[in-house]
Amino acid sequence: MKIAQIVPLYEAVPPRLYGGTERVVAHLTQALIDLGHEVTLFASADSRTDARLVAMRKQALRLDPAPLKSDLASHLILLQEVRRHADEFDVLHFHIDLLHFPFFEDMAGRTLTTVHGRLDMKDLPEAYRRWNAFPLASISEDQRRPLPFAHWHGTVHHGTDGERFHYHDASDDDYLAFLGRISPEKRPDRAIAIAIRAGLPLRMAAKVDTADREYFEQRIRPLLDHPLIEFLGEINDADKVEFLGNASALLFPIDWPEPFGLAMIEAMACGTPVIAWRCGAVPEVVEQGVSGFIVDSDEQAVAAVHQAQALDRRRVRAAFERRFSSKIMASAYVDLYQRLPAFVGRDPAPAALPPGGPNP
Amino acid sequence: MKIAQIVPLYEAVPPRLYGGTERVVAHLTQALIDLGHEVTLFASADSRTDARLVAMRKQALRLDPAPLKSDLASHLILLQEVRRHADEFDVLHFHIDLLHFPFFEDMAGRTLTTVHGRLDMKDLPEAYRRWNAFPLASISEDQRRPLPFAHWHGTVHHGTDGERFHYHDASDDDYLAFLGRISPEKRPDRAIAIAIRAGLPLRMAAKVDTADREYFEQRIRPLLDHPLIEFLGEINDADKVEFLGNASALLFPIDWPEPFGLAMIEAMACGTPVIAWRCGAVPEVVEQGVSGFIVDSDEQAVAAVHQAQALDRRRVRAAFERRFSSKIMASAYVDLYQRLPAFVGRDPAPAALPPGGPNP
Repeated sequence: MKIAQIVPLYEAVPPRLYGGTERVVAHLTQALIDLGHEVTLFASADSRTDARLVAMRKQALRLDPAPLKSDLASHLILLQEVRRHADEFDVLHFHIDLLHFPFFEDMAGRTLTTVHGRLDMKDLPEAYRRWNAFPLASISEDQRRPLPFAHWHGTVHHGTDGERFHYHDASDDDYLAFLGRISPEKRPDRAIAIAIRAGLPLRMAAKVDTADREYFEQRIRPLLDHPLIEFLGEINDADKVEFLGNASALLFPIDWPEPFGLAMIEAMACGTPVIAWRCGAVPEVVEQGVSGFIVDSDEQAVAAVHQAQALDRRRVRAAFERRFSSKIMASAYVDLYQRLPAFVGRDPAPAALPPGGPNP
Repeated sequence: MKIAQIVPLYEAVPPRLYGGTERVVAHLTQALIDLGHEVTLFASADSRTDARLVAMRKQALRLDPAPLKSDLASHLILLQEVRRHADEFDVLHFHIDLLHFPFFEDMAGRTLTTVHGRLDMKDLPEAYRRWNAFPLASISEDQRRPLPFAHWHGTVHHGTDGERFHYHDASDDDYLAFLGRISPEKRPDRAIAIAIRAGLPLRMAAKVDTADREYFEQRIRPLLDHPLIEFLGEINDADKVEFLGNASALLFPIDWPEPFGLAMIEAMACGTPVIAWRCGAVPEVVEQGVSGFIVDSDEQAVAAVHQAQALDRRRVRAAFERRFSSKIMASAYVDLYQRLPAFVGRDPAPAALPPGGPNP
């Protein structure tokens, strides 16, 4: 099929540092190409991809040092470019939540919208009711909970690149990992408390958004003095693989309805078990006693730290390969594309189409 | 004419407390009705207006205590409602910057977009080049500076309601006023320094946004201990009239390209002179030595404080009436409406139209 991937412009594809959505789309795009599809990526110009790139905005927004820039203007320009090229594609796959809804109503049946964020927000129910012609993909079953009536077309769990996040035997170094964003709902404070009670070093690789700067300074920085705790700041992908792969376990003590939690499968890909709070998508991702432990309290988490060290890291990796490789994600998306309203009743589109697109 | 006013949903129309755009639209709407036009207001449901109200969102966004809400979803819903009603109007007057551009291209010639914000931001030039069919109104000549090539259709200075902001003789109480938002570019610190050097009390009526909370706590709060300084927080409209009207002068020591500066004309309406920095729209609003003083330094500001006390407050009010009443603003907008691409070559539309809209 001829597929357009439309990505937010906050981070490059793949992101240089933090950035979940753009990272998932990078893996998806490569896996779709590997499956023989023709993929065009609408993304910031600093993206690196084997797909055809329609380059928007020289640099992704977040790491652009310009103090005054317009997120909205750059995303509207993105939409206009997609619209200008729309006829070239069988499927328009949007990853920008709902900004495109009013603008693509006439072709909603050949769009797929993966919703990447939390959905328990005021104003969303009305919007998803109004624009119910747009088929939606959730990234977990749990994510759908606030909008059960929305036009759900399927759930596709995130996948990641198992070659990049390659298997690691346990390292000599015995430490716990915390990865992501410093914010109250990610509970870095809880990760610190668990590590100290378990008596194991904790390494924290995390970005601090402007919005969370005060929380970081007031609540987290004072905890970083403890000799077991090491704060690394944001790290790049190469460092992340080693960071996750050499850890005894990833701590994921979240306190919000996390729609997926990419760090969990990145750790699993490296053979690193995950100790995660029963929250959001966690029970859909972690297989209890196989790829990690789902816990409800600090006590359980401390116990799980020791149990995790006894897990077979090869089985953790196998659990990843079974469910969370980019190839499995891409195949699931192709299945959704083929079941879009615009294609129902047609022959399944072949992977590589002749010029001119599919026959009606 | 049949006119739709489309307003952001951040504040009610008029706003309960702070809120420039929504306040201007409230005055414009009333003045258009007084001129005999048929006005429909698309605004939050807590708005109060003599126009027909198409009510969006129960409560305006900023004062809605819900922690999770979607600005974007609520504004997209607003646009869909406008679109659904579009045929009922001769003119669609947008006040939401550029969100509507991709969505209303087919009727751009009968829209007018008043740009309310600063325009010196990356991404905007490309957006305003792409959507150059939308006639734009600037709120000062200075505002246009970063986008001289944009489709400027006219400049209309803001106006306000001279009956509500009524003339005040000097009060016995001798104080300076600071009104608006606490943020680095509004220079509340400079206002404090000037008042202290002038030896006059300063009363500050200002909101503190979350984004500016740290600036307020670290840079401004420590200055509030001085016996001459009084911080009032946000005030409502009734209090604002007394607050401005009883002041000897308004200090407006801004340090950014303020596109207009509504507080200046609200003060002038009360007969209160304005002491403002030469920045943004200031030289277009303040008449040197008549309605106030334009200054370039703290020294000049301190001198101006004493000169301002000698100004004739009736002449300040007269300067307001000559240029900044809501009626003058509304007439200027009607003139722009009649010169929109959709109407050029037609007879000027009468104030009150027969059912069915203007004749072609």
